[in-house]
Amino acid sequence: MKKADVVVLGGLSGITAGISCRRHYPDKKVIIIRKEGTVLIPCGIPYIYGTVGGPENNVIPDGLLENNGIELVKGEAVDVDRQNKVVTMKDGQTIGYEKLVFATGSVPLIPPIPGIDKKNVYPVKKEFDYLSDVYRQMKDVKDLVIIGGGFIGMEFADECKKGREINVTVVEALPHCLQMAMDNEFCDEAQTKLVETGVKIMVNEKVEAILGNEKVTGVKLADGKELKADMVILGIGAVPSTELAKKAGLELGFRGTIRVDRYMKTYTDPDVFACGDCAEKVSFFDGRPSGVMLASTATSEARIAGANLFSPTHQNCGVISVFSTVINGRAFGVAGLTERTANQVGAKIVVGKAEAPDTHPGGMPNSCQTKVKLLFAKDTGVILGGSLSGGKPVGEMVNVLSACIMHKMTADDMVMFQMGTHPALTSSPIMYPIVNAACKAVIPLKG
Amino acid sequence: MKKADVVVLGGLSGITAGISCRRHYPDKKVIIIRKEGTVLIPCGIPYIYGTVGGPENNVIPDGLLENNGIELVKGEAVDVDRQNKVVTMKDGQTIGYEKLVFATGSVPLIPPIPGIDKKNVYPVKKEFDYLSDVYRQMKDVKDLVIIGGGFIGMEFADECKKGREINVTVVEALPHCLQMAMDNEFCDEAQTKLVETGVKIMVNEKVEAILGNEKVTGVKLADGKELKADMVILGIGAVPSTELAKKAGLELGFRGTIRVDRYMKTYTDPDVFACGDCAEKVSFFDGRPSGVMLASTATSEARIAGANLFSPTHQNCGVISVFSTVINGRAFGVAGLTERTANQVGAKIVVGKAEAPDTHPGGMPNSCQTKVKLLFAKDTGVILGGSLSGGKPVGEMVNVLSACIMHKMTADDMVMFQMGTHPALTSSPIMYPIVNAACKAVIPLKG
Repeated sequence: MKKADVVVLGGLSGITAGISCRRHYPDKKVIIIRKEGTVLIPCGIPYIYGTVGGPENNVIPDGLLENNGIELVKGEAVDVDRQNKVVTMKDGQTIGYEKLVFATGSVPLIPPIPGIDKKNVYPVKKEFDYLSDVYRQMKDVKDLVIIGGGFIGMEFADECKKGREINVTVVEALPHCLQMAMDNEFCDEAQTKLVETGVKIMVNEKVEAILGNEKVTGVKLADGKELKADMVILGIGAVPSTELAKKAGLELGFRGTIRVDRYMKTYTDPDVFACGDCAEKVSFFDGRPSGVMLASTATSEARIAGANLFSPTHQNCGVISVFSTVINGRAFGVAGLTERTANQVGAKIVVGKAEAPDTHPGGMPNSCQTKVKLLFAKDTGVILGGSLSGGKPVGEMVNVLSACIMHKMTADDMVMFQMGTHPALTSSPIMYPIVNAACKAVIPLKG
Repeated sequence: MKKADVVVLGGLSGITAGISCRRHYPDKKVIIIRKEGTVLIPCGIPYIYGTVGGPENNVIPDGLLENNGIELVKGEAVDVDRQNKVVTMKDGQTIGYEKLVFATGSVPLIPPIPGIDKKNVYPVKKEFDYLSDVYRQMKDVKDLVIIGGGFIGMEFADECKKGREINVTVVEALPHCLQMAMDNEFCDEAQTKLVETGVKIMVNEKVEAILGNEKVTGVKLADGKELKADMVILGIGAVPSTELAKKAGLELGFRGTIRVDRYMKTYTDPDVFACGDCAEKVSFFDGRPSGVMLASTATSEARIAGANLFSPTHQNCGVISVFSTVINGRAFGVAGLTERTANQVGAKIVVGKAEAPDTHPGGMPNSCQTKVKLLFAKDTGVILGGSLSGGKPVGEMVNVLSACIMHKMTADDMVMFQMGTHPALTSSPIMYPIVNAACKAVIPLKG
């Protein structure tokens, strides 16, 4: 029987957990078991269909594992015997472990819509061969319907439109696309940008059925409208991949995720850890269970899990939820709560808004107006969240906000924030919008 | 006699101090007195000569003052009677104040080199007409020598080369350009980038004399070499502009700056404040006086000064020193200490380095390899500084580091940093180099 000190089950966060473990415990032998021959960069999947031109350009090289002295076993783990600490593979092979990490991720949510299993209806699975097939099929597609106007749906729509003679329609059940992620003004801005590319957006529309015989020919909406479609992409969310964990007797929690403590250790077994989409998350803000599934969150948890395997040192403070996206060249980002989510939990807040070009003077090349909206707790002045739209720097500005949130900075602290500025790289020091948005909240907070 | 609640003397940080005051004390009347008809964006000055094409494209609009209900008085303040709280202008006009703010900035350091006052030898003054004259003169220049390889010198060299048939030589007295700001590996990288544009760099070279009759014809170096020159730009530093403060009897401190406490209040007079280059700074790290002069630091101090004028609320934690620059399209940034400055103060440190493309996959358009170097205190694991080079996102990544430094994050904290990531905007969550550099420091810190 093969044996390792640490066995990791899974893809993206599994790689990070393995590397983290090897860094902290260089004498430990680590094996990663995974089904997929190739691991895709999950957030890069929509970009396969446009900017990067094919799935082969969106893979995580296995060299990362070799360089970190991690052994890769390709195949499917079908059983975990926790008493004897043995994983059994589909081909009968057994692998012993001292510590086991579940990093089994998530699979797309497939709603019970009639006709959902017709040919050319594609939930977004993170599988290389599957997505390659979608890529090939898309060559002949004339009418693409995307069900779900979240990140995946919006990014797919934007990318599939690039360089193709294709009609793209996004169907969203809520009043706004991206509504679960952003406040209305940012949703509106993102929708406007996407519509500019020629994509059609339909909101407040529920899908009643997928039409066609063997292959999809259209989508029927609840209000009776019918959309022509020779391909449908489904981007309405994901569910944790925890069948094996359940079979192994691990306690599951919120929405079927594996219950873990702050060290990413399972509630059930001190020698079994979990991280990423398959692991239960709690909110940084109130400690309640959170449904956030982000690759960046998954890798943060994986670093924590890897560090704690043989000695509990790193505590997860709960998920802040930090993300960004790009729609038709405009970047959007959110860290922490939005005004919508703050209102949902009844938080009394003060909002500060500011905007400025992301160069100074604004006449520098490729200058882009950046909008910032910050939320502070009315009673304490502590930052609860921030939303941005603008150019490429938005991707790191949202990380500035994440650092501020992690440290519970108040609006007063942020007024005194010492940012660096440069004409070609940032807003001017007078206008720097993160600081100026905080400035605008200071007086209302006191009032 | 004109009267205001608050009189501010000066340009850039004066505007910010005025706006901050009006925001905190909306019922107070604020007057800004300044000599310059037009305030230039200070960090944009080198870009006048290339990218933005002329000084008129690099001004701070006075609309900012109007919008904030601030009165502008153009002219030179020549006397301050602190007993009667009156400022006297060169034309004899007097203006009464309740609170006075010195934001008088700095002027270029002019070294006692023989011939330094010849025609076409230009220290970098922040004056519109002066810089317009330099702009006009540069049209006919064939051989430009820039004395000083700091930010100003390097940026001027890079910009003046753009779209001109011109020989540009940078003369630096130290072994590396940018040596006061960055560690050698980043200095080397910046020099290599600049040399690629055709600029000639001479290090370890001291200037002995400026040659020529009325007008400069060359530069003589200490080792006897002579460089042909029909224009010389001097970028070797700045000195605080504090003549009026001295005349008014305010206590001066380090390198002639106005002594202030943590509220930016002068030591001498509770009704007089100072901020920006003219005000004394102490280091965030050890509280010792610091010679840092940055526009971003100046505006941070101005926000603090403005908030404290009628009630002490905001405390300056000392200057972290956060900045970025761009040389031939590559961005460089530093927040806090460098390895060099840490060694100078005898700090025992652990260094973590990482690099990654600033998109994922790396094949996304305009992807740029980003290098990160972080410094942590050996005993406590607290971050002391970070250096970066890469693409446009470096300008905000250095601000992520600033937030981490401000909050004394440890390497362990930074391992758990929750960054947002996106294919077109950031490195991949597995590779995110700020976090991975911290990861690499964790074990050496414990060892």
